[in-house]
Amino acid sequence: MAAKAVVLVSGGLDSATALAVACSEGYDCHALSFDYGQRHVRELDSARAVAASLGVQHHLVLRLDLRKIGGSALTADIAVPKGRSAEAIGEGIPITYVPARNTIFLSHALAWAEVLGAQDLFLGVNVLDASGYPDCRPEFVAAFEHLANVATRAGVEGGSRFRVRAPLIALDKAGIIRRGLALGVDFALTWSCYGPEPDGRACGLCDACQLRKKGFTEAGLTDPVPSARP
Amino acid sequence: MAAKAVVLVSGGLDSATALAVACSEGYDCHALSFDYGQRHVRELDSARAVAASLGVQHHLVLRLDLRKIGGSALTADIAVPKGRSAEAIGEGIPITYVPARNTIFLSHALAWAEVLGAQDLFLGVNVLDASGYPDCRPEFVAAFEHLANVATRAGVEGGSRFRVRAPLIALDKAGIIRRGLALGVDFALTWSCYGPEPDGRACGLCDACQLRKKGFTEAGLTDPVPSARP
Repeated sequence: MAAKAVVLVSGGLDSATALAVACSEGYDCHALSFDYGQRHVRELDSARAVAASLGVQHHLVLRLDLRKIGGSALTADIAVPKGRSAEAIGEGIPITYVPARNTIFLSHALAWAEVLGAQDLFLGVNVLDASGYPDCRPEFVAAFEHLANVATRAGVEGGSRFRVRAPLIALDKAGIIRRGLALGVDFALTWSCYGPEPDGRACGLCDACQLRKKGFTEAGLTDPVPSARP
Repeated sequence: MAAKAVVLVSGGLDSATALAVACSEGYDCHALSFDYGQRHVRELDSARAVAASLGVQHHLVLRLDLRKIGGSALTADIAVPKGRSAEAIGEGIPITYVPARNTIFLSHALAWAEVLGAQDLFLGVNVLDASGYPDCRPEFVAAFEHLANVATRAGVEGGSRFRVRAPLIALDKAGIIRRGLALGVDFALTWSCYGPEPDGRACGLCDACQLRKKGFTEAGLTDPVPSARP
C-alpha cells in the first residue's frame, strides 16, 4: 500500500506542481484546500480541477473564518495592488499577505495527516520569485516540522515522524512551470489572479499575475489561462 | 493604552483562569473561542459567559470544520470514555485527544494577534493533572512560540516578538481552582463535561469531570456546577 501524503492545493500553479511531485513519488495523495473567505474564491474550482486531473481520489475542502480576522487585501476590504513595479513587488511584505495563513493551513494538514496515518505534508511554497510572504521561507517550513513532531502523538509516543516537504522551495517560477509540465500538470486548470476582470479573465496586473507572467515568459512558454493583459 | 493579548477561551476552568490571569496583568484581553464541531458545544455558552463576567470587550468565535477531519471522541462518532480509573486517565493519550487542536487554535490566535498588534497569546494548558494531550506540554508551547516568530512579519522585519503564555502550565487542578478564585473567576459559569446527562447536568464520569472533581476535592471546595455524580 502506498504511503499517504497530505498536499495543500490552492489552485495556483505552485501547489499544482507540488501535488504532481507528490503523486510522481508514488504517494497516495490527499489534497486539502480552504474556503477561507478569500477574494479570489474561484481558485477553489481550480483546486478541484487540478486534483481531479492528477487522479487524486481524496480532496477535502474546509471552511475557515479568516474574513473575521481580516488584515489582508485577500480577506478584508482592502484593494488588491495592481501594476506594481518588479522592484516594488520584490520589496517588503505585501498587503496580500494573510496573517498566519500557511500556519493555519498546515495545522489542519497536520490534523488530517495524524488521523490518516500520513507522515508527509506537501506544500508549494518557494522563495526565489519572492512574494515576500514570511510563511513561504525555509525557516518557516523547518519550524513547522519541528512543531508537528512535538504537538502530536508522535511527540509523546515516538515512532514515525512528520516531514514537511516543500519540493519547490529553491525554484523560481519558470523552474516550477517547467517542472510541472514535465510531470503532466495542465496549467490551463490553475488560477493565480487576486483580482479578476469583470469578464472573468485574469487581470494581468496584480502581483500574482505579474509573477506568473514573468515565469511563463522566462520559460519561453505561453500561459494557457486568458489574461486581460497577456 | 494597555497592551493587547489574545486569550484562548474554551469555557472550561483552565482557560477561564488563564483569562483571569491575563486580565489581572492589565492586558486588553481579546478572547478567542472555536465552534469546531465539538460534541460538548455548550462549552461555547460558558466561554461567552466567562469572558463577559471578566469584562472582556472583544470575543471572537470562529467556526472550524474539525468534524470533517474526525479522529477523536469529541469530533467523530466515537464514544466518550466514562468511569475510567485514575490510573487509566493518567496513562497514554486518550481518545478525546483532538489531533492538532491546540496547533490549529493557536494558529488562529497568532493571525488575530498579528492583525491586532498583540504580542501575547495566552492559553490554559497544564501538565500536572495530566490529560495526556501532547499539545498541552511545555515543549509544545515553546515550539509554537518559535514558529510564531518565524511565520509572521516579526520573522522578517524583526521588532517585537510573540510570546506564548501558559501561566498554569505547572499547576495542578486544585492549584488552578485556587488561583482562579483568587482572581475572581466564577466557576459556576464554566463547563468541563464531555458527555452531559440528558437532563443537562455534568456526567461526573468522563475524564474531564473526574479531573475537575478531583481538583475541587483537593482544594477543599464544592463545585458549583451541578453533576449527576457529585
